[in-house]
Amino acid sequence: MGSIFGKLFQISTFGESHGAGIGVVIDGCPSQLPISAEEIQCELDRRRPGQSALSTPRKEGDRVEILSGVYQGQTTGTPITLLVRNTDHRPQAYDKLRDQFRPSHADFTYIAKYGFRNPEGGGRASARETVGRVAAGAIAKKLLAALCPEIEFSCYVESVAEIAMPPCETFFPQSEIERVPVRCPHAEIAEKMEARIKTARADGDSVGGTIRCKIRGVPAGLGEPVFDRLEADLAKAMLCIPATKGFEIGSGFAGTRLCGSEHNDAFEMREGKIRTATNRSGGVQGGISNGEEINFRIAFKPTPTIAKKQASVDASGTPCEVIGHGRHDPCVLPRAVPVVEAMAALVLADHLLRQRAQRVF
Amino acid sequence: MGSIFGKLFQISTFGESHGAGIGVVIDGCPSQLPISAEEIQCELDRRRPGQSALSTPRKEGDRVEILSGVYQGQTTGTPITLLVRNTDHRPQAYDKLRDQFRPSHADFTYIAKYGFRNPEGGGRASARETVGRVAAGAIAKKLLAALCPEIEFSCYVESVAEIAMPPCETFFPQSEIERVPVRCPHAEIAEKMEARIKTARADGDSVGGTIRCKIRGVPAGLGEPVFDRLEADLAKAMLCIPATKGFEIGSGFAGTRLCGSEHNDAFEMREGKIRTATNRSGGVQGGISNGEEINFRIAFKPTPTIAKKQASVDASGTPCEVIGHGRHDPCVLPRAVPVVEAMAALVLADHLLRQRAQRVF
Amino acid sequence: MGSIFGKLFQISTFGESHGAGIGVVIDGCPSQLPISAEEIQCELDRRRPGQSALSTPRKEGDRVEILSGVYQGQTTGTPITLLVRNTDHRPQAYDKLRDQFRPSHADFTYIAKYGFRNPEGGGRASARETVGRVAAGAIAKKLLAALCPEIEFSCYVESVAEIAMPPCETFFPQSEIERVPVRCPHAEIAEKMEARIKTARADGDSVGGTIRCKIRGVPAGLGEPVFDRLEADLAKAMLCIPATKGFEIGSGFAGTRLCGSEHNDAFEMREGKIRTATNRSGGVQGGISNGEEINFRIAFKPTPTIAKKQASVDASGTPCEVIGHGRHDPCVLPRAVPVVEAMAALVLADHLLRQRAQRVF
Amino acid sequence: MGSIFGKLFQISTFGESHGAGIGVVIDGCPSQLPISAEEIQCELDRRRPGQSALSTPRKEGDRVEILSGVYQGQTTGTPITLLVRNTDHRPQAYDKLRDQFRPSHADFTYIAKYGFRNPEGGGRASARETVGRVAAGAIAKKLLAALCPEIEFSCYVESVAEIAMPPCETFFPQSEIERVPVRCPHAEIAEKMEARIKTARADGDSVGGTIRCKIRGVPAGLGEPVFDRLEADLAKAMLCIPATKGFEIGSGFAGTRLCGSEHNDAFEMREGKIRTATNRSGGVQGGISNGEEINFRIAFKPTPTIAKKQASVDASGTPCEVIGHGRHDPCVLPRAVPVVEAMAALVLADHLLRQRAQRVF
Repeated sequence: MGSIFGKLFQISTFGESHGAGIGVVIDGCPSQLPISAEEIQCELDRRRPGQSALSTPRKEGDRVEILSGVYQGQTTGTPITLLVRNTDHRPQAYDKLRDQFRPSHADFTYIAKYGFRNPEGGGRASARETVGRVAAGAIAKKLLAALCPEIEFSCYVESVAEIAMPPCETFFPQSEIERVPVRCPHAEIAEKMEARIKTARADGDSVGGTIRCKIRGVPAGLGEPVFDRLEADLAKAMLCIPATKGFEIGSGFAGTRLCGSEHNDAFEMREGKIRTATNRSGGVQGGISNGEEINFRIAFKPTPTIAKKQASVDASGTPCEVIGHGRHDPCVLPRAVPVVEAMAALVLADHLLRQRAQRVF
Repeated sequence: MGSIFGKLFQISTFGESHGAGIGVVIDGCPSQLPISAEEIQCELDRRRPGQSALSTPRKEGDRVEILSGVYQGQTTGTPITLLVRNTDHRPQAYDKLRDQFRPSHADFTYIAKYGFRNPEGGGRASARETVGRVAAGAIAKKLLAALCPEIEFSCYVESVAEIAMPPCETFFPQSEIERVPVRCPHAEIAEKMEARIKTARADGDSVGGTIRCKIRGVPAGLGEPVFDRLEADLAKAMLCIPATKGFEIGSGFAGTRLCGSEHNDAFEMREGKIRTATNRSGGVQGGISNGEEINFRIAFKPTPTIAKKQASVDASGTPCEVIGHGRHDPCVLPRAVPVVEAMAALVLADHLLRQRAQRVF
Repeated sequence: MGSIFGKLFQISTFGESHGAGIGVVIDGCPSQLPISAEEIQCELDRRRPGQSALSTPRKEGDRVEILSGVYQGQTTGTPITLLVRNTDHRPQAYDKLRDQFRPSHADFTYIAKYGFRNPEGGGRASARETVGRVAAGAIAKKLLAALCPEIEFSCYVESVAEIAMPPCETFFPQSEIERVPVRCPHAEIAEKMEARIKTARADGDSVGGTIRCKIRGVPAGLGEPVFDRLEADLAKAMLCIPATKGFEIGSGFAGTRLCGSEHNDAFEMREGKIRTATNRSGGVQGGISNGEEINFRIAFKPTPTIAKKQASVDASGTPCEVIGHGRHDPCVLPRAVPVVEAMAALVLADHLLRQRAQRVF
Repeated sequence: MGSIFGKLFQISTFGESHGAGIGVVIDGCPSQLPISAEEIQCELDRRRPGQSALSTPRKEGDRVEILSGVYQGQTTGTPITLLVRNTDHRPQAYDKLRDQFRPSHADFTYIAKYGFRNPEGGGRASARETVGRVAAGAIAKKLLAALCPEIEFSCYVESVAEIAMPPCETFFPQSEIERVPVRCPHAEIAEKMEARIKTARADGDSVGGTIRCKIRGVPAGLGEPVFDRLEADLAKAMLCIPATKGFEIGSGFAGTRLCGSEHNDAFEMREGKIRTATNRSGGVQGGISNGEEINFRIAFKPTPTIAKKQASVDASGTPCEVIGHGRHDPCVLPRAVPVVEAMAALVLADHLLRQRAQRVF
């Protein structure tokens, strides 16, 4: 239960880190949308490990295969299935961890929930599960591009550990963000982040950070009061990405220190359109997009897998020492950028279809 | 669309601020749970305005009526409907606002979405909609108390504008929190908060703040990877409360500055149980509760309704001046505490039933 | 659980026969649809008992109140709540039945399911629950009329016990059907049906029958392969009406005796449109409407409540004699006609919105 | 949209007749259920064409692969994905049909709905889609066997064209049904049915028929009033099988000719349990199972694909002659038996989990 996301553009992800494969079924994508395996592959490649010295040396081939729902380069309106076979499979690497509970991993809670778990590579709890999301997100992005060509994403690493970009209102184009492996558009800060990540790796440790996501061109009117507000669905979408611990939109936590008179976004006419003079709302008012830039931030904890020795217990409750093996990223932030984009695209695609269904008069 | 929440313990709220009434239908509450209108009323009274000098003088009678689903003091297993009639209805108070877009309110976005809106008291966008949630939450709490008697809530105002409680690990009992109208358990800070709110009122302005929610006694195993993670469902539940702008669980945004070795929660045996030595995870690992205290924090922006003059435009795009009339809280935080509890209880009740359905072997 | 119906045009019914009231919340009705309490009342009056000598003398006032979601005569896009207060409440009439299991009623199964039941008037199992459906159906019909003005219903009683209309292809207008209380458009047969129902009443017995429902003007393209096929959703909609035992569409059970070459509906051009020469498909092919007349039939068993003595057991398993009190219809068919229409309208409205959401290119 | 079925035991089927493959994702199967590819294969083999002279000579290899959700022979509680690769792929066989609308097929309606279609082997409209259902059904059956070992299916072909078994109350064991390819347990009738099917094939024609499904051992209490009644969910499950045109439970259409006093099932004590003396209810009362045998019947129309010439039109509206190529069954009934069982098992598994979630006191 719990592996289905969305109401109209509905995805169902499946697969474990070291099983036969990983993938997604998309039910509810409109027909006649042009899509190719290459376009999906592009997004997967952005998520793929081994892209730089910053990430795990594990070579995930991650070649996507379209199993259904696309005919002669167009969606048919029926379920689209995308499968990525697991190729780099070394279960024995996890033998030692079979009974140990790695601190701040899902080992213990999976046992508590299911009474049983697949320990290989974290099984379903592995961040590799996000492959399905990124693949589905690639199609959601195509749909958005077709229906609202003005939608544009600017999603980047804003901080790594204590190293943070200064606050800024620039809408960085994706090309600028993708220039460096750390996916931070501020050249100087990016360099420091890379150094910080390398230090963490050298220390056998890990670091966390924050990702900023800005989306412009979203039409006003998306989001469903009262429970399926746009910010609520975005919050859920972000907090279900592994390792996330926080979400804020617009002024967020900092805005709680302002007065209403300082915080309110005054309406004004700009180029013949009703706009807000400021954007502390982050593009959403009353749960509905207002046409301004959507702007939110997500907190990622430091990856729990580290090479250092850690005290823990095993399934029988006996104290033990855990040492991370496997091949893991000291910092997931750069590779999480396409995952954040994918989840945001899925939320927007779903709400766009919902709004089409109900705005009939 | 969007007014249904939950998968098994499913609620459907309805009603506007100034219509006939406001309420909720609960579908999926197990049968034979004892419940009385008085118990529900108790929770509603905690949310009710006019409880102190801190909140709006509007006198909402808010008497709940059980329309269905309860027979001889017990739930029947069929839909439970709770209705609160609107009594203090003065639509004319809103006449002036009919065509004006109040800054940072939902006036503009409701028009963008629905092409039309009920302007009286904000209609469906009014915080009064949360009456239905609190009423349903009262039943969810009863269900939790019956199934997991050890579950306990400690939910309080942690900051108002710049006035914040120092970080602390105490689990304040509800009685201590409810002692003062501002619902902050730190006596000295509470006094400052009250003063700050009164200043805001005197200024015709408003203030925001944060609410902390701790829940202990939650059994390990609740939450559904990968999308319906417990923290993801909590994030959605909180971000769909009006005026919220952020959510963090456990170490949250601050935790992003730690290394993995500092952040990980080591497992240890305590009183014969597997426990974590620290709780930076906030009670959730891999999307599933681990039996530790669930601990999260929510950001509320300052209420957008203020008495000060504000620049805006009307529906035709003509510039205008908006002056808040109506009777509004300068700070919603104290009254939002029972709403936060209600939403958390709804999420937990739903996940408890889900876990019962699937943990069969 | 189980009291929510529909995916986009979603209804949630509530209420028991003898509780405070009965009603429905509709979430997902588009905004700006004109609707009045009177229009809803018209449909409820068609379902109301006491309309003729054929039905129960119970006088249900059944005045509908719109609690939410409509402002100045138009839907607002937010949940619409319709409430009908129960007025003719005599719980003592059911005292004797409190522990007895009436044959073929839901008394026994409600205990088996919920461990507990509200015995007054059948509680939630009463056919009075359909009030909420008819009220919601009135709004679904208005939506259909606004979006597809050519949609028209012809729904009537085709047989009562052994008295049946001869097979016919006429599309009877509603006015012709409503002329007689038995709601059969064949004057001669209608008379016999009325006589048969009166005999059943005189005997303290009851009769069943079939209802035919034809709908024309439904655009091609509604219905979602593979599970939410139009006929599958219609079948569910009909089989969840109390006392129904069967559903067939188009050629139905009789068609199973034909060869493919006899059964297939040849395509042809008619008035410039692709049409089928015959309509054994009943307006649906591959789960999707084909623009032809939708045509289905529903079997209703004889009402289980009869005045005759019946052998049964009570909750303790002790044999007892059950004698029907209360005031019941000897034949529910005539009053079930508006319920069938309502359920069909709900299915069509839902699928119409679904199709709008997905047919975007 | 529309390819997801179930609320807790939720399946999502995918795939087309002649694409890469066909399969299913099951989300919500409890953990620690033993399952092997062989067990699933067994059910698939029962559905496979080419089993006898009665069905299409097309050799579907139909080897199932478990892609996820099973570890060391047990379900993990996470999504189970089952994939069957398409091997016998000859798209050119369908070239001629690319623009023609085959009578009573989904060709026309798919175009009406999606504006576009995959013509190869019927694409998603092919009965081959049921492979995913049968595979998922195999797991649902395992779950039922584990939770309610007394549940047993007796599902068989009751009639083919005009050749029908006499009414009988015997609960035929599966072994007896599977003895002959036509899956009719009445030896003499089975022989006539086989002859009838062979005649249809020789004629280049096809035949329909009815399937009877009896299930015993289902505990009382399954089914959710008011919309998710057990019979309503069964009706939907059956009417979403390709080529079905009708459903009846218990006394069905024939029961509409009885009086209430003849139709009611009297309660009595039998072997210390409350039972009904007769079973016209078909095992369901008020939408909830009563512990008696569940007994329903489904109408299948004659397969629309026939070898005879048929008049039709093409996509441009030009009259044409359609001649069935491909390799098709003259009668789908025998192979539909495992599909009916699978759909019934899916409904029961879902309702069993639902009842576990809500019967907590």
